[in-house]
Amino acid sequence: MTDILINGEEKTTINVSDRGLQYGDGLFETMAVKNGKINLWEDHWQRLKSGCERLLISSPDKKLVEKEIKSLCENNNNDKFVIKLIVTRGEGQRGYCFSENQNITRILDVHTWPDYPDKNKTEGVAVRYCDTVLSENPRLAGIKHLNRLEQVLARNEWNDSAYQEGLMLNVNGNVVDGTMSNIFMVEGNKIITPDLSLSGVAGVMRKNIIKLAEKIKLSVRVEKLDKNKLENADELFLTNSLFGIWPIKSLGDNTFPKTGEITKALQKEVSKQGC
Amino acid sequence: MTDILINGEEKTTINVSDRGLQYGDGLFETMAVKNGKINLWEDHWQRLKSGCERLLISSPDKKLVEKEIKSLCENNNNDKFVIKLIVTRGEGQRGYCFSENQNITRILDVHTWPDYPDKNKTEGVAVRYCDTVLSENPRLAGIKHLNRLEQVLARNEWNDSAYQEGLMLNVNGNVVDGTMSNIFMVEGNKIITPDLSLSGVAGVMRKNIIKLAEKIKLSVRVEKLDKNKLENADELFLTNSLFGIWPIKSLGDNTFPKTGEITKALQKEVSKQGC
Repeated sequence: MTDILINGEEKTTINVSDRGLQYGDGLFETMAVKNGKINLWEDHWQRLKSGCERLLISSPDKKLVEKEIKSLCENNNNDKFVIKLIVTRGEGQRGYCFSENQNITRILDVHTWPDYPDKNKTEGVAVRYCDTVLSENPRLAGIKHLNRLEQVLARNEWNDSAYQEGLMLNVNGNVVDGTMSNIFMVEGNKIITPDLSLSGVAGVMRKNIIKLAEKIKLSVRVEKLDKNKLENADELFLTNSLFGIWPIKSLGDNTFPKTGEITKALQKEVSKQGC
Repeated sequence: MTDILINGEEKTTINVSDRGLQYGDGLFETMAVKNGKINLWEDHWQRLKSGCERLLISSPDKKLVEKEIKSLCENNNNDKFVIKLIVTRGEGQRGYCFSENQNITRILDVHTWPDYPDKNKTEGVAVRYCDTVLSENPRLAGIKHLNRLEQVLARNEWNDSAYQEGLMLNVNGNVVDGTMSNIFMVEGNKIITPDLSLSGVAGVMRKNIIKLAEKIKLSVRVEKLDKNKLENADELFLTNSLFGIWPIKSLGDNTFPKTGEITKALQKEVSKQGC
């Protein structure tokens, strides 16, 4: 059996007329599967559904997707792996115009677990600033859509292992997120993460961390963050659905030599969830 | 024989791991074929090549693409049709990172000629303003890349035939281009078209019109254009590789009842080229 299901069928290809290819006209979710269970599935589903609504794409049937995910999980013997779900507006004629009753394309694809070193979690990661900026568009901000050229160009500004992630700034010089993660800063008993109303991806783990922080009585603020503010943080950490929380040990020329207490407390909460 | 060639093979599908689908990581050209010849082929090729360089994608082999286009043309009996060429960064692993020696994907696809009414050229078209704005990113501006969600959303703000095109503004309220065209205004003996250094697609026909205008001794300016300036133009027209020049007869509430002399003079030059 294949590790890919396209509209429920075992196949590995899509038609070239699919609007996902033609225009990046779709969305995706990258999900961690551990011991046969998708972490934060309801949050992934809610984000996908809300993204579909904002892009005027019909949502797939939830029960159907859950059934397909289950069959992919049963077919996989690994303790942990990744399932990527892509939903596109489906096949279409040439031209930007779409019809009201487009049949969406639903792709589920199994990937091996990324080989992130354990020390990224314990000792922290080195982060750089990217030169590629993020554009601003309230119509697309926050959505995990398929228009990802900015992230592609940013991620490929470096190709050595000296840095584990790059931070992206918007056209006004505010830090928005990492190429594949969200960022939080700790200031006293408060955690702050950038506002994503104009650009960036609203990560499922970011949402989860905000909830967990409130649970352990930290105050949470969402606001504009510039480099100066960030570099003067007590602690800094990155979040994403696969790795959970990575402390930042250095950002550009600034070092944060020890994983702070609040970062550790949040890591503990995430690990209690099995994420 | 099929009307689609993918890396030279007669097939209609691509692998789901293609970065064109995963991230919109690629470019395209939409070209008019008339009497077996691609209009403005060298300009299309130059734009594709320059887009590939800016996105760090290897250019396809020009001779090879020309040979494939020739075979598609020989296979088609219509006087005119459309060939769309897509070049993606090719298949890849999950994640934004790409390898240095990616094998690009090259797709050539034949489409029927769009059924634009002749009166669009003679009587002009009705144009509206779109609510969906264009974001700004100098790294991507001008390139005909596959990240086209803004155009998709803008084009689908209307679905009746009252309007033939919609104009898109950037986040600062300047007019940039149409969803599928570029715009020019005429002011006295001068033509003006919006600056595309921060957003928009630098159309092959736009470039051609600038050359033709200089040929017939019009002065050409590229600058920021707001709605007010545009609405006070002597003449307005749209350009694109398939339809050439469409005069604008109305823009929002403003009407331009007669096709102006300069628009007509440029249409004449374009028609001499066989475009």
